[in-house]
Amino acid sequence: MTGSPLGLHRVIEPPGVLPQAAWRLEPYRPGTTIAADEVLVRVDRLNLDAASYRQIRETYAGDPGKIRAAVLEIITTRGKMQNPVTGSGGMLTGTVERAGSRSPLGLHPGQRIATLISLTLTPLTIADSLARWDTRSEQVPCDGYAILFARSIAAVLPADLPVPLSLAVLDVCGAPALTQRVIKQARTSARSDLVVVIIGAAGKSGSLSAAAAREAGATKIIGVVPAESEAALLREALLADEIVIADARDPVGLSDKVQAAGGPADVTVVCVDVPGCEGGAILSTAQGGTVIFFSMATSFSSAALTAEGLAADVTMLVGNGYVPGHAELALGLVRSTPGLRALFERRVGAEGAEGSRP
Amino acid sequence: MTGSPLGLHRVIEPPGVLPQAAWRLEPYRPGTTIAADEVLVRVDRLNLDAASYRQIRETYAGDPGKIRAAVLEIITTRGKMQNPVTGSGGMLTGTVERAGSRSPLGLHPGQRIATLISLTLTPLTIADSLARWDTRSEQVPCDGYAILFARSIAAVLPADLPVPLSLAVLDVCGAPALTQRVIKQARTSARSDLVVVIIGAAGKSGSLSAAAAREAGATKIIGVVPAESEAALLREALLADEIVIADARDPVGLSDKVQAAGGPADVTVVCVDVPGCEGGAILSTAQGGTVIFFSMATSFSSAALTAEGLAADVTMLVGNGYVPGHAELALGLVRSTPGLRALFERRVGAEGAEGSRP
Repeated sequence: MTGSPLGLHRVIEPPGVLPQAAWRLEPYRPGTTIAADEVLVRVDRLNLDAASYRQIRETYAGDPGKIRAAVLEIITTRGKMQNPVTGSGGMLTGTVERAGSRSPLGLHPGQRIATLISLTLTPLTIADSLARWDTRSEQVPCDGYAILFARSIAAVLPADLPVPLSLAVLDVCGAPALTQRVIKQARTSARSDLVVVIIGAAGKSGSLSAAAAREAGATKIIGVVPAESEAALLREALLADEIVIADARDPVGLSDKVQAAGGPADVTVVCVDVPGCEGGAILSTAQGGTVIFFSMATSFSSAALTAEGLAADVTMLVGNGYVPGHAELALGLVRSTPGLRALFERRVGAEGAEGSRP
Repeated sequence: MTGSPLGLHRVIEPPGVLPQAAWRLEPYRPGTTIAADEVLVRVDRLNLDAASYRQIRETYAGDPGKIRAAVLEIITTRGKMQNPVTGSGGMLTGTVERAGSRSPLGLHPGQRIATLISLTLTPLTIADSLARWDTRSEQVPCDGYAILFARSIAAVLPADLPVPLSLAVLDVCGAPALTQRVIKQARTSARSDLVVVIIGAAGKSGSLSAAAAREAGATKIIGVVPAESEAALLREALLADEIVIADARDPVGLSDKVQAAGGPADVTVVCVDVPGCEGGAILSTAQGGTVIFFSMATSFSSAALTAEGLAADVTMLVGNGYVPGHAELALGLVRSTPGLRALFERRVGAEGAEGSRP
């Protein structure tokens, strides 16, 4: 028996919606069978979305017992880890325990993988009460089971990179892939120069996008950061040709500084998780250019109305986290770009500076 | 003296933000001068955004005196018509009274125009207390003054079309222009067939987008409507090859019906102003296809996470209301497409069925 490739057969409540929109999913129960196109994963770690983790930690004032109980309660009640307040989930790592004969994912028992889809649509059950989690980080060591559907995506963790580094890279791997695709398309038009502005360039998705932009043939990369400490990180990583320190929420201030640094941009990539960056991104982009919004804090109506109000003929993209080949591309960039790898290793050491997969 | 092309010189509170984000603008005061790159418009009609009008009407239970007072109070307090609850504005018509010597808009005194930017960023003052407005429609006859900046956009109202018809068309003219551009770009790729799905195809922006898609070379146009009454309108207008009656908020139901009608789409255009249509639009679109979201009810994060969760490699565009040449294109479509014009004339006669420029 095969399931729905989208996982509709595991939606309990309300019936008929997609797993992500569901209130409750049916997770794997030990001893039961799985559908022929599903994959069963023995989970060893959850990587909670930063916004979700922060919300729960603050609600329970850092009390480890209460935090553990709250996360466990969500997973038990909903059959998935989706924080009802923030709506976000995270990702997980684990080992393939069983791969249905009709699963198209190409996974085999024993492979160590990370999911590249959100926990908000992944059926999940926990077997160890999260007893090993000290709750001081959004990385949750645990024992449990997750189900992948035919249309889910997972990446086999590479043997040559530390797992925390791979996780951090895979968490944001859609950004460099889409950035690269957009820049390659822009290069096919007549212009010879191609200026790329990365807002939040010293963060995880921003630094990966900068490295991807370089590889795709960007002529000039302008990295925007909020403070001198971030500028120093970015300078050391050699990922930008120009570095601008600016408040991304100040449209005129930002675009003036971008202009002075060699702008406007042909392609602007928004990687900073604060609301109110739409105007600055649009104003920093040339007529005919493209803005890619990766920030989950982006307001759809603000982007649309601001561009219209400025008579800005810019193409505005919703940053889709899925682009074929995104995991390999991102891991490859980290392997081939020493400055990027060093920056990531610092970030992984000092977790929590930037949002992760919602 | 020239002003800021963006209108920053008329922002009073808070200082430094763009006019749209401002709480209060400095409108024209009779007897004062205007900047050399501004245009002064003698306003004769406001076209309030449907959501804004509905909110005010419901708040005051349809009482004309209170509704008039509320709108007047907003304009007097803010120097612009931006409903503080809905955040939306509308558009206006009027006659050019004075055009600054350095205005790049090419307008001349005496021309009857409509603004193509939102009232949320247009300095406005009212001289007649809105006394002629019976408050039964979002069209507000009035006397007042508005200011256009160097980067504002306005269209001269055509002599050959009734003003209410032109207004209705100009209100949504960004949608057909962007639809046409996307379809023309999609046609340059190798495929010979090009399937377009229009969700909300019998509405104003939807029907215009359908006509634009046809002109741009779409092979098959599938129009999605919520009910048989809308299907009848669309059938009569001859704008779609296939008509699907479906709830756009039901992803699986919608995509199954689109599939049966000849889908999936290479290009999907979302023109229906209800929340929760992201999943259905994405699922109805082929891998490698494009979704254009024109609905202001679109959730950015829902679009991004749903596409990722479905491993849907679709390009998702924020529907920018500004595309060069959009007004001429839309008016031209209405002139050249009898079915479209007839549908619009019915809509203009029965106003309020669809949202207007926010």
